[in-house]
Amino acid sequence: MKNERPLILITNDDGVSAPGIRALIEVMATIGDVVIVAPDKPQSAMGHAITINDTLYLNKISKDTDAITEYSCSGTPVDCVKIAVHEILKRKPDLCVSGINHGSNSSINVIYSGTMSAAVEAGIEGIQAIGFSLLDYDWNADFEQIKSFIKTITLEVLKNKLPEGVILNVNFPKLKEKEIKGIKICRQANALWTEKFDKRQTPQGKDYYWLTGEFVNQDKGEDTDEWALHNGFISIVPVQFDLTAHHAIQNLTKRDWNE
Amino acid sequence: MKNERPLILITNDDGVSAPGIRALIEVMATIGDVVIVAPDKPQSAMGHAITINDTLYLNKISKDTDAITEYSCSGTPVDCVKIAVHEILKRKPDLCVSGINHGSNSSINVIYSGTMSAAVEAGIEGIQAIGFSLLDYDWNADFEQIKSFIKTITLEVLKNKLPEGVILNVNFPKLKEKEIKGIKICRQANALWTEKFDKRQTPQGKDYYWLTGEFVNQDKGEDTDEWALHNGFISIVPVQFDLTAHHAIQNLTKRDWNE
Repeated sequence: MKNERPLILITNDDGVSAPGIRALIEVMATIGDVVIVAPDKPQSAMGHAITINDTLYLNKISKDTDAITEYSCSGTPVDCVKIAVHEILKRKPDLCVSGINHGSNSSINVIYSGTMSAAVEAGIEGIQAIGFSLLDYDWNADFEQIKSFIKTITLEVLKNKLPEGVILNVNFPKLKEKEIKGIKICRQANALWTEKFDKRQTPQGKDYYWLTGEFVNQDKGEDTDEWALHNGFISIVPVQFDLTAHHAIQNLTKRDWNE
Repeated sequence: MKNERPLILITNDDGVSAPGIRALIEVMATIGDVVIVAPDKPQSAMGHAITINDTLYLNKISKDTDAITEYSCSGTPVDCVKIAVHEILKRKPDLCVSGINHGSNSSINVIYSGTMSAAVEAGIEGIQAIGFSLLDYDWNADFEQIKSFIKTITLEVLKNKLPEGVILNVNFPKLKEKEIKGIKICRQANALWTEKFDKRQTPQGKDYYWLTGEFVNQDKGEDTDEWALHNGFISIVPVQFDLTAHHAIQNLTKRDWNE
């Protein structure tokens, strides 16, 4: 990098026109050269899905300024990162940021989240990566309150780098800037969604279902992201893509699997 | 359970009619009472995607015998597990098995895999869960060779239970039963896909892309799933859904995030 401005790839899962990504672009343009490759439609809850049985389209979006290159992509958030890194960008970006998501990606939500999966994909590719989410599902959520924190966190990551194989999952409470108490490094709370399927009938009398659910936090720990957010802090969870339950290897190795 | 036969939920990502799930059903029917809820179409590489912006349909499939209840579902593999547990089954199943996948879900594939995401979802819901995959993408792959191993592994899990929050990712080499050297408990190899986008044009002259890629194993370790599979063993990786990079918390906590 040296005297160059960092090259920053931006994506999200709410789609290229969401106010959340617009706010993120605004912050990142003050830090580096920005390339945007984001889904052409909402792709929430797509997890780490990729498109292998269908074609992908890229659409270059014209901008007033040459400083920002912007594409919409017909694929998932993870597709966006892959096509950006391997087809669009001439060099590996210095950073990939994803979001700002309209809604929480704390605790178990990390696993369903397109926003976080895009950041994780960048991490797999060896790129410093951060996912940003605000605990406000409103399309007109007030992203102004968190812009200065996003800039601080991003500059810290660019300066000191993340440990290898680590991606940051950053969630912001829905508070005014002055009410936010600070930043806490956390672990993912042990929580889950209890589903309730809303069963309905089509006008033709065929049953169908909507997936709905209730968030249940089973974790009383004060070192979790849920605790931090409930207590007015920004939560940062370091996330990894090595899913091995290393602590279980010894227990399982002792068993007789070949009997 | 006591004298009852275990209740086993079966799903996959290749779709309800794939030979892989048919082979798995055959094995599980010798062990317990089987309920199948699987996608009505291929859902490979769907990761942990769930359907929140669309409706879900269930279709009960008639079977010759009452012993097996079978549904196809319009959603993703994770949707299938959610709707099975919360809408179809009257009690929590004793086990959820997913697969047999037509193709590898070793190393980083675990994160893209619909098969493994379904098993992980069952794990999140507190159900013993195993994903099975055979390193053969052929629709007519020879699942006969691995049936006895699948039964042995399943009985071991039902008998001794998995550690809390742990799901098994089981991959089989493409070998004859007699050539398979045994079972190894492994960690996920540090590997990734290097993408190559195949750029084409529609008959109308519009560019489009196919996602293709090359699998790159960067990991020389002899305790990985890739090593085991290459050396004729069945690999079992214990997988967790706590994505926290716990080892990075201390390093990150020391930094000044509020400057």
